Amino acid sequence: MFNERIRLERLKSKITTAEEAVTLFKDGMTVGASGFTKAGDSKVILPALAARAQNERLQINLITGASLGHGTDGKLAAAHALKKRMPFQVDKVLRDKINQGEILFIDQHLSESAEQIHNKIIDPLDMAVIEVAFIERDGSLVPTTSVGNSVTFAAFAKQVIIEINTTIPMEVYGIHDIYQAEDYPHRNVIPIVAPWNKIGRKSIPVDPDKIAAIVFTDLPDSPADIAPPDEKTAAMAAHILRFFEAEVRLGHLTDRLLPLQAGIGRVANAVLAEFRQSNFYDLTMFSEVLQDSTFELMDAGILSFASASSLAVSEGWHRRLFENLQQYKEKFVLRPQNISNTPGLIRRLGVIAINTAIEFDLYGNVNSTHIGGTQIMNGIGGSGDFARNAYLSIFVTQAASKDDAISHIVPMVSHVDHTEHDVDILVTEIGIADLRGLAPRERAQTIIDHCVHPDYKEALQSYFDRACARGGHTPHVLEEALSWHTRFRETGSMKPIPVL
Amino acid sequence: MFNERIRLERLKSKITTAEEAVTLFKDGMTVGASGFTKAGDSKVILPALAARAQNERLQINLITGASLGHGTDGKLAAAHALKKRMPFQVDKVLRDKINQGEILFIDQHLSESAEQIHNKIIDPLDMAVIEVAFIERDGSLVPTTSVGNSVTFAAFAKQVIIEINTTIPMEVYGIHDIYQAEDYPHRNVIPIVAPWNKIGRKSIPVDPDKIAAIVFTDLPDSPADIAPPDEKTAAMAAHILRFFEAEVRLGHLTDRLLPLQAGIGRVANAVLAEFRQSNFYDLTMFSEVLQDSTFELMDAGILSFASASSLAVSEGWHRRLFENLQQYKEKFVLRPQNISNTPGLIRRLGVIAINTAIEFDLYGNVNSTHIGGTQIMNGIGGSGDFARNAYLSIFVTQAASKDDAISHIVPMVSHVDHTEHDVDILVTEIGIADLRGLAPRERAQTIIDHCVHPDYKEALQSYFDRACARGGHTPHVLEEALSWHTRFRETGSMKPIPVL
Ligand SMILES: CC(C)(COP(=O)(O)OP(=O)(O)OC[C@H]1O[C@@H](n2cnc3c(N)ncnc32)[C@H](O)[C@@H]1OP(=O)(O)O)[C@@H](O)C(=O)NCCC(=O)NCCS
Ligand SMILES: CC(C)(COP(=O)(O)OP(=O)(O)OC[C@H]1O[C@@H](n2cnc3c(N)ncnc32)[C@H](O)[C@@H]1OP(=O)(O)O)[C@@H](O)C(=O)NCCC(=O)NCCS
Repeated sequence: MFNERIRLERLKSKITTAEEAVTLFKDGMTVGASGFTKAGDSKVILPALAARAQNERLQINLITGASLGHGTDGKLAAAHALKKRMPFQVDKVLRDKINQGEILFIDQHLSESAEQIHNKIIDPLDMAVIEVAFIERDGSLVPTTSVGNSVTFAAFAKQVIIEINTTIPMEVYGIHDIYQAEDYPHRNVIPIVAPWNKIGRKSIPVDPDKIAAIVFTDLPDSPADIAPPDEKTAAMAAHILRFFEAEVRLGHLTDRLLPLQAGIGRVANAVLAEFRQSNFYDLTMFSEVLQDSTFELMDAGILSFASASSLAVSEGWHRRLFENLQQYKEKFVLRPQNISNTPGLIRRLGVIAINTAIEFDLYGNVNSTHIGGTQIMNGIGGSGDFARNAYLSIFVTQAASKDDAISHIVPMVSHVDHTEHDVDILVTEIGIADLRGLAPRERAQTIIDHCVHPDYKEALQSYFDRACARGGHTPHVLEEALSWHTRFRETGSMKPIPVL
Repeated sequence: MFNERIRLERLKSKITTAEEAVTLFKDGMTVGASGFTKAGDSKVILPALAARAQNERLQINLITGASLGHGTDGKLAAAHALKKRMPFQVDKVLRDKINQGEILFIDQHLSESAEQIHNKIIDPLDMAVIEVAFIERDGSLVPTTSVGNSVTFAAFAKQVIIEINTTIPMEVYGIHDIYQAEDYPHRNVIPIVAPWNKIGRKSIPVDPDKIAAIVFTDLPDSPADIAPPDEKTAAMAAHILRFFEAEVRLGHLTDRLLPLQAGIGRVANAVLAEFRQSNFYDLTMFSEVLQDSTFELMDAGILSFASASSLAVSEGWHRRLFENLQQYKEKFVLRPQNISNTPGLIRRLGVIAINTAIEFDLYGNVNSTHIGGTQIMNGIGGSGDFARNAYLSIFVTQAASKDDAISHIVPMVSHVDHTEHDVDILVTEIGIADLRGLAPRERAQTIIDHCVHPDYKEALQSYFDRACARGGHTPHVLEEALSWHTRFRETGSMKPIPVL
């Protein structure tokens, strides 16, 4: 096993235990760790670091690809092992500590963390922790179920700790396309013109002398937990499919559409699932994450190729994929996230982006991150990379939730992640609003007519009418603009207090 | 003169008067017209159209490059000749009618209007009006002081009206780089890796059979009116220069910096002027507009090359440029705005973007467009194209204005054009806040410490402290977040009402 997984002889002396390896960490270090949407993350080093931090002061700045699995972020947060965290997280324990102001969080476009490291804008990396399937003869690293920022971490960190995950078969070799653009001022063209273009190598280059420890693990990725479609997500998916069909009839798109990006979560999954009963064919994805639905569509013969940075699949699909890797291998590729999410490629390929909002407002501004304008949920992730540069930017959300005490369409969003300039189509279970080519006042009426929950329609129309009476290109009654949020905070509901 | 300016014989029969040409317009038409920051706009057709519209119902949807000169937008607006207008304007009369809701305005990233036409997302163009220096033997068009969206207009409009501007010398041939990327799904790489790369032709292709009328004019562009630097703009410029010098010392940049983009206006001009007393050399610009300061820096031997979509210079510099065109010709290029502003190139080149804000908030969100959240000023222009994709995104604004009754730093901006994710550096005459690598609470304290006018510092600190006491990743006191704007609306000042 050692021979197979560590093909550069002299590195075998670096094999050690997780407990031993974490003695390499020092308080105040900046650490880059593999892992993107729970895939390809460190299974033993970071948890061992959390254990060590329970007994001594040991705080790091932690940069990852995106979210980690196995509750690792929570363990680190609970052990006070995190000073600063970027660029994304989904962990309840960590989230609470961020919202309490105890841990500093930088919520960042996922394409940009690597840029900041390359441009030396953030602290130099003291350490990288990278999960790999095996180490090649030249010391280069073959990653596992995500690439994330690992290429940059391996290049820039002073020391590297490797986690070899033996649950990942050796045949994983070849599913990654490892490429980095040149640093400024010598950056060249990234020569991708279609999702299936492979432009790089199969493993991540690293100076073997930087490898300070190698630890083995046989823990698999945390599976993605995707709730099954329900009535609401099915309705949203159907609205989107009807819209695509209409665009084809109008001659805007062909039955092949354009490369799709779909955010994580139920709605995205439900939309892709809907495609199975459609006439679309030869579809492709240029996304950051691939979910079960991607591979189901491949099996159905509807999707031909998918490009992303990570595999966030269920336990069942994880097994199926790796047991039949030869069959799927030619149909997908995993790239560094600063390539999968790079603005120029998203514009060049003409990606159709589908992401989920927490709430949107009358004019189509979208909040993806902050409940009530203050409490962060997860982070912007790649939604901005895609929405801003897409051929078509679609956001979905339910019209109302929590027994309809919350309207997800509000007069003014309490936090803006995507401005109206970057939002084309809004979808709720009620209907779809096509905002392309509309001025703000037209956008507002379209949204009220098509997306709002019936319990809030009258109130939103009243707000809009009174705002228009005051005038402005983007009419608002400013002292009332955030009142739905403050009312929810005070009364537990956004509904107007009935006049007795 | 006709022979020189119309080199395709059969088109000479199309010569006519502006009054005659505008009989081609019909109510309800969608029209694309050349013109970008008052440069290269229609001098006689659109004004003649406004005159005609005074006597009859004649409303068009007007798409341009950016703003027009000669008060043309105002004349059209006053004559009720505009139904819809996009993507940018700076005219007081038009602005008022937009804010009254009489004219619909689409405020759009300047890189995206051409995309929407190519993608058939907005109404097909019935007519294009394009100012040219001359018509080539193959019928192709040699533009004047801007390229804007004219390439797309010429390709997509059913009919084209040409305005030949005889004030522009024939030697202008060669200053334009006319290139269009392929339509989806066949878009290829745009092969620019440095500002000086020329990748296209020298004239705009058009089907000569579409040319419906040709009109001559000898009216020059409206000159750019740039107020001279004052104490405040000089202070902002100095902060930015000191910052660049520090970045060079840290090894983040070299003395050549990276290609600069500077928004229109006084501050941008003042910053570039400051460079004259610096050690920077061999600078380049990759911008959308070139102002006087660009050419002054060329004369000073500090700037080697500038790329943009338009020349917005003073009368003096207009004359000087065209009288010495051979001298300057090799040092600048004008491109279509969907190339000058394209996201992928801005990221690839690593542009340093400097733009002006109306206001920004505690967390670094920027409002570029809406006074008091409702009344549009001009539009987002290219600021979003650049800020989002730049290597470094800088925004400047004065700390306070109107006898300090207005603070340009507020608890929460009343409208968001650029989210905190896309804003690196904020500058006022007070100082500079470097927000890179900072979490929201750190950003807020940095902004309070460095940018806020003394009259508002205590109030903003108090807001922030009370917000932190409530908690959240991005702390706010939501019911108070927009109170500075509502107070200004009610009392004419943002200053707290003193407790008597
Ligand atoms: C936006 C995002 C949080 C939505 O996820 P989701 O699971 O579909 O979220 P929901 O619509 O169920 O809403 C989230 C919660 O916020 C609550 N909520 C929404 N608006 C609220 C408001 N104004 N006040 C209080 N609570 C609110 C909902 O009720 C729900 O509560 P629950 O979790 O207790 O049920 C998620 O998609 C995300 O993190 N997106 C950003 C990252 C991204 O888009 N990446 C894209 C590439 S992968
Ligand atoms: C943002 C922009 C309007 C700033 O221009 P400017 O001339 O420097 O503007 P000022 O700072 O003087 O402020 C504009 C006015 O708004 C007023 N103002 C600002 N904030 C205000 C507020 N909260 N309430 C009321 N008035 C306010 C100012 O007092 C000033 O008034 P005045 O014109 O009567 O003096 C301009 O740069 C722009 O249009 N930018 C968007 C386009 C762009 O950035 N393009 C970039 C590529 S070219």
